[in-house]
Amino acid sequence: MKQIRELLMLLLLASCSKLTASTTVWMPMWQQKYIEEKADSYCLSWRLGVETNNIRAWRTVPTHCLRYVENYMMRGQYERDVELIIDHVMDYVNDDVVLSNDGLDAWILDVDDTCLSNLFYYQGKRFGVDPYDPKGFHEWASKGVCPAIPAVLRLYNKLIESGFRVFLVTGRSESTLGQATLYNLHNQGFLGYERLTLREDQYEGMSSIVYKSEIRKKLVGEGYRIWGNVGDQWSDLQGEYIGNRTFKLPNPMYFVP
Amino acid sequence: MKQIRELLMLLLLASCSKLTASTTVWMPMWQQKYIEEKADSYCLSWRLGVETNNIRAWRTVPTHCLRYVENYMMRGQYERDVELIIDHVMDYVNDDVVLSNDGLDAWILDVDDTCLSNLFYYQGKRFGVDPYDPKGFHEWASKGVCPAIPAVLRLYNKLIESGFRVFLVTGRSESTLGQATLYNLHNQGFLGYERLTLREDQYEGMSSIVYKSEIRKKLVGEGYRIWGNVGDQWSDLQGEYIGNRTFKLPNPMYFVP
Repeated sequence: MKQIRELLMLLLLASCSKLTASTTVWMPMWQQKYIEEKADSYCLSWRLGVETNNIRAWRTVPTHCLRYVENYMMRGQYERDVELIIDHVMDYVNDDVVLSNDGLDAWILDVDDTCLSNLFYYQGKRFGVDPYDPKGFHEWASKGVCPAIPAVLRLYNKLIESGFRVFLVTGRSESTLGQATLYNLHNQGFLGYERLTLREDQYEGMSSIVYKSEIRKKLVGEGYRIWGNVGDQWSDLQGEYIGNRTFKLPNPMYFVP
Repeated sequence: MKQIRELLMLLLLASCSKLTASTTVWMPMWQQKYIEEKADSYCLSWRLGVETNNIRAWRTVPTHCLRYVENYMMRGQYERDVELIIDHVMDYVNDDVVLSNDGLDAWILDVDDTCLSNLFYYQGKRFGVDPYDPKGFHEWASKGVCPAIPAVLRLYNKLIESGFRVFLVTGRSESTLGQATLYNLHNQGFLGYERLTLREDQYEGMSSIVYKSEIRKKLVGEGYRIWGNVGDQWSDLQGEYIGNRTFKLPNPMYFVP
């Protein structure tokens, strides 16, 4: 309650500040700075809540966190967060994994905002402040122009070189986005993976946790040992057969149930 | 590797800066500011890595993050993070839990840095930059003077009022800290819980995940439904019978395996 009250006050002050800008009513710098710092502090708490899976099933980024999420995604902190996590994945691969020569050492990677970045698309959706737009996203993904996330491509190449069988598992529809996704992964340098699994019609409408658990169950049934599993959504990393280690990449722009 | 190189550079620059301070060799403000911002950015990534369970089994806070963690814990962001999470726990309790009248609706809370704060103690341990000191911690905990974490006490009272059976489960040793813990919880207003479970000798040396899973298994065996589980360590929230919802409170000062 206290926080809601504080936020309402903030929004009120923020709207005054807009008024100020257009009507040149004076507002002291310290007051503007105070408002910005308060919002940033709240949005940092919100982002931590999202990334730790304490805050779930959220539909959009809070409007007053637009500037914060934009800064986070565009000014380097997001990349640095991803780099540090991938450094720790590499340490795990180097120090804790014992590979066999039987071709059954498996690794799972999600596609959207794990291998391939949708940041350019979400820039046009106010970094997630706008609600999910299935048609718009489909158009974007159809183009096959998502750039690789550099740190993940670095991990990917390391995994392939080390002899892992890499499985890419995505909630994208096989029938409508299969070709574009294959093309996009190829043009970004994701070569030599074992299998790309897209969502078949039978899994349509299923939650990602259930669908991805099914896919992993089949892999384990085929004898694969899932050493690691990397995704930007907790639904990539929960459910059954999640793998020996899971790694959560940051994504404060959208939530997949 | 890139990050390690950057960090080494930072440490070098930071040591120059110390030199600067003591010998009054001139260093421009923008350079000092640059160094501080770089360190803060790394430490923010590190904290995110820790809180998402991507970084595990760490022994101490990185030395160059001392100032960052101190600021985080002492200047309000930690409290705001906790408050926001507890607000979301309250939403879950209000909106998603359906209580029965059979006295079997259970909730689990950890004790250290969940109900009771050890912040004053860790202030003397450079916020976790110093290694774990079992003797020092035992002396501190024996005094029974840990203050309640206000947001968690607020949740606690709500749970008791709503009719939950609240179970406090802690890794503290029953034989040596039982009395002090009972006393401390009482003097901080944690009244009316169903059971306080401390670590009996038979669980000595067991990992927290295994020990706490055992305790929860017994509760489920007694017929309790574990609606929620709140702790500051991932080892409170993993393993078996973790509960319908888990909530991770922040703790960048130490890691319990």
